Amino acid sequence: MKRDGTRIKAVMGVIQARIASRTYTPGTRIPSVRAMAQAMQVSVSTVLEAYERLMAEGVLTSRPGSGFFVGGPVAPLALTELGPKLDREVDPLWISRQSLETSNDALKPGCGWLPASWMYEAGVRKALRVAARSDTMNLAEYAQPLGHIPLRQFLSRRLGGIGIDAPLEQVMLTESGTHAIDLICRFLLQPGDTVLVDDPCYFNFHALLKAHRVNIVGVPYTPTGPDITAFGAALLEHEPRLYITNSGIHNPTGASLSAVTAHRLLKLADATDLVIVEDDIFGDFEHTPAPRLSAFDGLEQVIQIGSFSKTISASIRCGYVAARSDWIEALVDLKIATTFGGGRMAADIIHHAITDSGYRKHMEGVRLRLTEAMDETVVQLQAIGIKPWVVPRAGMYLWCQLPEGTDAAMLARTCLREGLVLAPGNAFSQAMAAKDFMRFNVAQSADSTIYEVLKRALNA
Amino acid sequence: MKRDGTRIKAVMGVIQARIASRTYTPGTRIPSVRAMAQAMQVSVSTVLEAYERLMAEGVLTSRPGSGFFVGGPVAPLALTELGPKLDREVDPLWISRQSLETSNDALKPGCGWLPASWMYEAGVRKALRVAARSDTMNLAEYAQPLGHIPLRQFLSRRLGGIGIDAPLEQVMLTESGTHAIDLICRFLLQPGDTVLVDDPCYFNFHALLKAHRVNIVGVPYTPTGPDITAFGAALLEHEPRLYITNSGIHNPTGASLSAVTAHRLLKLADATDLVIVEDDIFGDFEHTPAPRLSAFDGLEQVIQIGSFSKTISASIRCGYVAARSDWIEALVDLKIATTFGGGRMAADIIHHAITDSGYRKHMEGVRLRLTEAMDETVVQLQAIGIKPWVVPRAGMYLWCQLPEGTDAAMLARTCLREGLVLAPGNAFSQAMAAKDFMRFNVAQSADSTIYEVLKRALNA
Repeated sequence: MKRDGTRIKAVMGVIQARIASRTYTPGTRIPSVRAMAQAMQVSVSTVLEAYERLMAEGVLTSRPGSGFFVGGPVAPLALTELGPKLDREVDPLWISRQSLETSNDALKPGCGWLPASWMYEAGVRKALRVAARSDTMNLAEYAQPLGHIPLRQFLSRRLGGIGIDAPLEQVMLTESGTHAIDLICRFLLQPGDTVLVDDPCYFNFHALLKAHRVNIVGVPYTPTGPDITAFGAALLEHEPRLYITNSGIHNPTGASLSAVTAHRLLKLADATDLVIVEDDIFGDFEHTPAPRLSAFDGLEQVIQIGSFSKTISASIRCGYVAARSDWIEALVDLKIATTFGGGRMAADIIHHAITDSGYRKHMEGVRLRLTEAMDETVVQLQAIGIKPWVVPRAGMYLWCQLPEGTDAAMLARTCLREGLVLAPGNAFSQAMAAKDFMRFNVAQSADSTIYEVLKRALNA
Repeated sequence: MKRDGTRIKAVMGVIQARIASRTYTPGTRIPSVRAMAQAMQVSVSTVLEAYERLMAEGVLTSRPGSGFFVGGPVAPLALTELGPKLDREVDPLWISRQSLETSNDALKPGCGWLPASWMYEAGVRKALRVAARSDTMNLAEYAQPLGHIPLRQFLSRRLGGIGIDAPLEQVMLTESGTHAIDLICRFLLQPGDTVLVDDPCYFNFHALLKAHRVNIVGVPYTPTGPDITAFGAALLEHEPRLYITNSGIHNPTGASLSAVTAHRLLKLADATDLVIVEDDIFGDFEHTPAPRLSAFDGLEQVIQIGSFSKTISASIRCGYVAARSDWIEALVDLKIATTFGGGRMAADIIHHAITDSGYRKHMEGVRLRLTEAMDETVVQLQAIGIKPWVVPRAGMYLWCQLPEGTDAAMLARTCLREGLVLAPGNAFSQAMAAKDFMRFNVAQSADSTIYEVLKRALNA
């Protein structure tokens, strides 16, 4: 009896701790009795008793046939309140807002994109001039529901080139890559569902998922993709509905998915109704393409999304979704209902720029510049005791460990006062397990002032 | 006892009928016991007994402290399934998709926008050429979180001109007008909340609100705004969280809000926590501005939204929200999380076009053309027995009653086979009370073939 009581309290303690840390927010569906029993290696009746006690305390509520939920109302939706109570320095929205808001004089090694001068400016200028001469309809009218046909044709061909068979009617344009994921979330998720993300992952995934009031579970990321053992355990414990990841170049680590990890991951997912969103936004930065989950899977369980914000222009908003036909049909209805189709103009300009003969040459130049900047940044950071976790094969991100005992959030706060926008590790970590990590953008890290400020702040 | 039993069954019958008609979908929160008792003029205990019987039958579920909900799971979200089971002809998404998808040869008197040739083409071409010469940052970078400053400055001044005091920091740009409403819904609403709309109203409001899984209640619209008695009753019965309307030129009726209706409506809303979204998309079409709820209210309970799709270009997506500062703060976080800021380019082009000296003259010409087209269309329709419900003071919409006994949806289906896209009344009506109404766009109704096809179809 006593041992039973201890186990019941242990289960209650786990739930209460997750509520306290805001891993579970009001309305979150907690693991089923069966899943919890398995995860904690206790009996079903122990978990049931724990859940019932928590219900009696008003901590949980139940809905017949749906399971157990964290109680308490949540409205209106304020994202800053939904997340863990953090310093604004490591809030998922903080880096976005800092990077978008700070003056152009600030140095931004924490910024997620290339400097404006590295983008395909000539191509965009040319495309704008072409658009100014184009016919009246392109200038004035709404796009077709799925989006501008020539750009979708281009994408369909490009996807074919990396082994993904996505006919024209399976490619839909969106306002941005984030918008593409948001539409998928709205289509698939209900409040309380569980979503897996990589830990660390792109911080805006946290903010986006919080807006959907879902339960976010992080899977540790390794230099060749998600940790497969942890991924399998998370499938079992949390019965997640969705997993969001980058395969080609992972944000923030810069690592790439290996074929063996891709294969094992899909084998595990195969037995479940998990949907995987593969965010392929960094595809054009790769020297040789890493394996794609969407190619292995044939767009059955995997949806590929992407955008042009990192290569052509972040100023002209356009993204895409490639998915199963029946899902595209539902997504296009949802897109019309919530944004009334997209802009023909943005897609037209992107299409002109990306099919321009200069684009390929421009990207070759960018890849070369990034390789040089990567080497240079590694050397500079190592000189002040900051070590790369992995040296990426391509891309702009470098995920680094700070000297022992350094708190990245505190360092970011100190450096911000000297005009340096950094990206502290815990903003990317669901488990808050990256306190001493920092993401650097090698394309934004050439200025020697950065290392002087960092060195001073580290020594302080 | 017998009379009690009858009353209990009457309450159960009302709920079941609303579920059958899909007014209440799974997850909808039904009226509180108190509100239902008041609405049906029965005792609280009668309603409670009715709700409990429905719970026993599994029709309803309850959540302590939150109320009663329609049972049954809903996922994934397919909008066509969420709505009433209608012919696709009167589905809220049907007109959008038909208008966006059909070839340019089709005649579209049901279309919601001006022909491409009526839009501000010259201004857009000029703005594109200016953009092509603009600095690198405008071409490449993300916009500030609130959006492109010059366009927000323009909007702040323009709002001031119609009596709305909205400083720069209270104006946020969005991807479109629909996107603006969507963000507000995400911020304020939870599944099961009730939202008031005009009946009839812009059909996409229905689709958008269905995506939020809320309970939609229509308030009959009169030629001077919503029916105030019905509005007051709906406030009492449904305790709605939000009301969405057009003040200047109402879609689909073309009617305008009167000062007395505006004043009475705000007086009723004052005692509640209702939020009002005023969609001001047709402002530039007015000869003399109608009263604005946002001006009367001083952006306390009212949020104004708008876009440039109907005047400058639907191809360049950009909308705005003007609201209380604390709401703007939350909305901007939500915008970054779900679409990662907006496009600097679209806002830049819109700003150039709308501040161009030619824009005012262009719109004068459009208003004149619309007045002529309105007169002409009224004559043509009356000749075949189709009568305007009200002759609008401005704008492109004409809401008409068909000859007695005509089914607008059937007429639309017949005419579509002859290449005519129409907008049947029930697509705009939450209560499906506009079976014999049709919305015409006078700017798309010049071709005499339209009246020949309509006449033939009416006689068949």
